[in-house]
Amino acid sequence: MLECFSWLRRILESTKWSIFITSIILLNALTLGLDTIQPVSARFGAVLSGVDSVCLVIFVVEILARIMAYGFRFFIGKESGWNWFDFIIVIVSVAAGNGISVLRALRVIRVFRLLSVIPSMRLISSAMLNTLPSMLGILALLVVFYYTYGVLCVNLFGEKFPDWFGSLGESFYTLFQIMTLESWSMGIVRPVMAEYHWAWAVFVSFICITNFIVLNLIVGVVVESIAEIKKRK
Amino acid sequence: MLECFSWLRRILESTKWSIFITSIILLNALTLGLDTIQPVSARFGAVLSGVDSVCLVIFVVEILARIMAYGFRFFIGKESGWNWFDFIIVIVSVAAGNGISVLRALRVIRVFRLLSVIPSMRLISSAMLNTLPSMLGILALLVVFYYTYGVLCVNLFGEKFPDWFGSLGESFYTLFQIMTLESWSMGIVRPVMAEYHWAWAVFVSFICITNFIVLNLIVGVVVESIAEIKKRK
Amino acid sequence: MLECFSWLRRILESTKWSIFITSIILLNALTLGLDTIQPVSARFGAVLSGVDSVCLVIFVVEILARIMAYGFRFFIGKESGWNWFDFIIVIVSVAAGNGISVLRALRVIRVFRLLSVIPSMRLISSAMLNTLPSMLGILALLVVFYYTYGVLCVNLFGEKFPDWFGSLGESFYTLFQIMTLESWSMGIVRPVMAEYHWAWAVFVSFICITNFIVLNLIVGVVVESIAEIKKRK
Amino acid sequence: MLECFSWLRRILESTKWSIFITSIILLNALTLGLDTIQPVSARFGAVLSGVDSVCLVIFVVEILARIMAYGFRFFIGKESGWNWFDFIIVIVSVAAGNGISVLRALRVIRVFRLLSVIPSMRLISSAMLNTLPSMLGILALLVVFYYTYGVLCVNLFGEKFPDWFGSLGESFYTLFQIMTLESWSMGIVRPVMAEYHWAWAVFVSFICITNFIVLNLIVGVVVESIAEIKKRK
Repeated sequence: MLECFSWLRRILESTKWSIFITSIILLNALTLGLDTIQPVSARFGAVLSGVDSVCLVIFVVEILARIMAYGFRFFIGKESGWNWFDFIIVIVSVAAGNGISVLRALRVIRVFRLLSVIPSMRLISSAMLNTLPSMLGILALLVVFYYTYGVLCVNLFGEKFPDWFGSLGESFYTLFQIMTLESWSMGIVRPVMAEYHWAWAVFVSFICITNFIVLNLIVGVVVESIAEIKKRK
Repeated sequence: MLECFSWLRRILESTKWSIFITSIILLNALTLGLDTIQPVSARFGAVLSGVDSVCLVIFVVEILARIMAYGFRFFIGKESGWNWFDFIIVIVSVAAGNGISVLRALRVIRVFRLLSVIPSMRLISSAMLNTLPSMLGILALLVVFYYTYGVLCVNLFGEKFPDWFGSLGESFYTLFQIMTLESWSMGIVRPVMAEYHWAWAVFVSFICITNFIVLNLIVGVVVESIAEIKKRK
Repeated sequence: MLECFSWLRRILESTKWSIFITSIILLNALTLGLDTIQPVSARFGAVLSGVDSVCLVIFVVEILARIMAYGFRFFIGKESGWNWFDFIIVIVSVAAGNGISVLRALRVIRVFRLLSVIPSMRLISSAMLNTLPSMLGILALLVVFYYTYGVLCVNLFGEKFPDWFGSLGESFYTLFQIMTLESWSMGIVRPVMAEYHWAWAVFVSFICITNFIVLNLIVGVVVESIAEIKKRK
Repeated sequence: MLECFSWLRRILESTKWSIFITSIILLNALTLGLDTIQPVSARFGAVLSGVDSVCLVIFVVEILARIMAYGFRFFIGKESGWNWFDFIIVIVSVAAGNGISVLRALRVIRVFRLLSVIPSMRLISSAMLNTLPSMLGILALLVVFYYTYGVLCVNLFGEKFPDWFGSLGESFYTLFQIMTLESWSMGIVRPVMAEYHWAWAVFVSFICITNFIVLNLIVGVVVESIAEIKKRK
C-alpha cells in the first residue's frame, strides 16, 4: 500500500514543501501576534481569524497526508519523536480552536512547529535534547533532595507560613524559587527566621547542595560535549 | 565468626534485597508525602503511622543485620563512609520517631537512603563528592575572606544595623546573602550607604572577590574533570 | 586616483596617528565626564563645550580623510565593518551635537571609538563577535520560545495584568526579566498565581527551557573556543 | 652585610617559624572574633586588647626582622609582591590600632596575612591572581562600556532620578547593581520606564553586552587553564 503513496512522500520530503509549511507557520505566527494588538484585533479580527483557520486546515491536511504517506512508520519510525511532536501540536491546536478563552490561548504553540520543520532548528533541538540523558542521573539526585526538603519544610514551617509551605506543591514551588536565589533571603528566609531562628540551616544547606548539584550538571555537560567532539575526529 | 554469616552477606548483597529496600524507602517516602495532605492525614493518619513504623523497623533490622554480617568492617572498611551515612540516618530516624514535633519532621531524611541503596545514585554521589577535595584549598580561601569581612562588618555596621550585622552569625548570614547577590543592593547596601556613604567599597569588593573565587572554583572543577577523563583513557 | 593619496594613507596607518586619535577620544571622554559634575559644568561649561566641539571636528576630519584616502574600499573592504562602526558613530555624534537634550546625551557614544582605534581592543572585540555566529542557531531557538511565550502570556494574563503583559512589547520585557530571574517569583509569578493558580506551569517551564538553552549556548562557546585553539596548533 | 644575617634568614625561612606566625594570626583572629560578642568584650575586653597588642608587636618585629635580613631585596626581590602585601597590612594595622572607631575596625585585615604565610594558600592565591592578566583586555573593554553607559545615564536620567544616576559615582554603582541583575527591573528600570518609556533599550542593551563580556571572560579563563595544564605535561 505504501508504494502507491511514493509520489506523496516525494512532495512531503521536497525542500519546496518545507519552505511552504515554514511560510504558513510564520504567517500564522504573524496573525497571532497582530491579534494581541487591541485596535488591529478589533478592526481586522475577522480577517485574522480567517487566516488562522486556513492555516489550521493546512496543518491538519499536512499531518493527515504524512500519516497516509508513511502509515504506521509515522508513529514508530526513526523520526517518530518529531512526528509525535507535530501530531500532538496539531491536535492541541484543533482542540484549542474551539475552546474557551484560556484554552484558545494555546493556539500559539503551533509556532513551535518551526523547531521540527526548519532543518537547522531541528538539528540544534536534537543536539540539545541529546545532552539530557547524561543529565538524568544528576536530575534524579535533584528530585530526591527536592522531595525530602519539600516534605521537611511542610512539616516544619507549613503551619506558620501556609502561603509558602502550606502543601507539598507550594513547598516545591517555594524551594524552586529559593534554588534560583530569587528573594530567597529578604523574601522568604528572614521572615521564617523571625519565627524559627534556626531556619537558616535548612535553607542555606538546601542552596549549597542544589547549586553544587547544578554546578556538577553543567560541568558534566561541558566535559561530555568536549569528549564527543573528540570522538568524532 | 564472620564466616558463619556468609549466608547473611549473600542476602544483603543480592540485587533482590536492594530492590526490596529501595521499595520500602519509596513506600515510606510516599506515606510521608501523603501525611502532609491535611484531609488524608486526618482520615488515614493511623494507617500511615503504622506503615511508617513498619518501615522504620525494617530499616533498623537491616542495619543491625549488616553490622552483624560485616562486624567491625562495617565501620572501618572500604565502604565505611556509606555505612556511617546509613547508620546515622537510621539513628536520627529512631530518635525523631519519638521526639517533639520539630524533631519528628526529621523522619523524612530516611529518603536520603536512596542515595546509598541505588547503585547509580551511589556512583553519582561519590563522583560529585570526589570533586570536593580539589575545592578544599579554594574553600579555605573563601573562609578567610568570610571571617575577615564578617568581623569587619560587625565592627563597622553592627551598632546601626543590628538585624544584619549585630553578631558574627548574623554577619556571616548577611554576607552569604550578598555573595548570592540576593537583594544585595536595594535590600542591604543602599540602606547602609544612607548611613555610611563609603559602605559600597566594603560590599562591592566583597562581591568581586568572592565571585572571583567561586569562578576559579568552577573553572578548577571543569579543568580537573577533563584531566581525569583523559587519564582514564 | 587612490595612488595620489598614498601619503595620506601612510599618515592614517601610522602608530603616531592612532595614538593621537586615542588621546583625543580620552580627552573627549574626560570632558564629557567632567560635564556631569554640576559645579564644574556650571563654571567651565563653555571650555568643556569648546573642547568637545574641537574633538568632534577632529573626528569628522579624520573620517573624511579616511574616506578620501581609501575611496569606496572604505565601505566594502576587509575592515569595512569597523569603518561603518566609526562612520555611524561620527554621524550620530554630529546629529547629537545639535539636538535636544535627550539626543545630546548620545554624544558620549564617541567613547566607543576606543574599541576600533586601540589595536588590542579591536582584536578582543573581533574575537568576541566571532563567537556570535556559532550562537545564532541557538539564539533563533530562543527567539521562537520568546515569541510563543510572549503571545501566550498576552492572551492569558494581558487583561488582568496590563502593566506586565498588556502588549507584546511589555510581555517580552517581562519575560526577559523572568529569564534573568529578577524578582520573577515574589514580583511577578506569585501575584499572577493569586489570580490564576496554574500560572506557575507557564513560568517555571519558561525558566527551565530558556535557562537550559542559555546553558547550551555557554557550553557551545566553551567547546568551540577549545576546538579553535587546537586547530591553530 | 647580608651575610651576617644568614642565621636570621634561616630562622625566618624555617617551617617552625611559619607555624608560629600562623598560630599568632589565628590567635589574633580568635580574639578579634571574641571581641565582637558584647558580653565577652565587656568582661574580658582588657585581656583581648592585651593579646591583640602582643600579636601586633610580634607582627611588627617579624616584618622588621625580614627587612633587616633581606635588605633591599625585601622590596624588589622575587617574592616582593607578597612582602609588600605583608608590609602594608602591618602598617595599616599599626595605624588602625590607634585610630578612631571606623579605622580601628580595619585591624581585622591582619587575618589576610594567612594568605601569605600558609604555603598552600599562597600557592592558590598566586594561581588565581595569575589568571588576572589574561582578563585585563576584557576588563578594559568592560571599563569602556561602564564609562560610556555611566555618563549616558547621568545625562539621560540624572535629573529625574538623582538617587540612582545623580552623579557619575552613583551611576557606576547603579550600573554595577544592574550588571549583577539585582532588582534591575522591579527596583530600577520599571520606575525609570514610567518616566521615560524607551529606557528599557538602554538597560537591556547594557545587561546583554556586559553579561556577554563576562561570559567571554569566564570562557577565556577556562580555555587558558586547560591550555596551561597541557603545556606542563
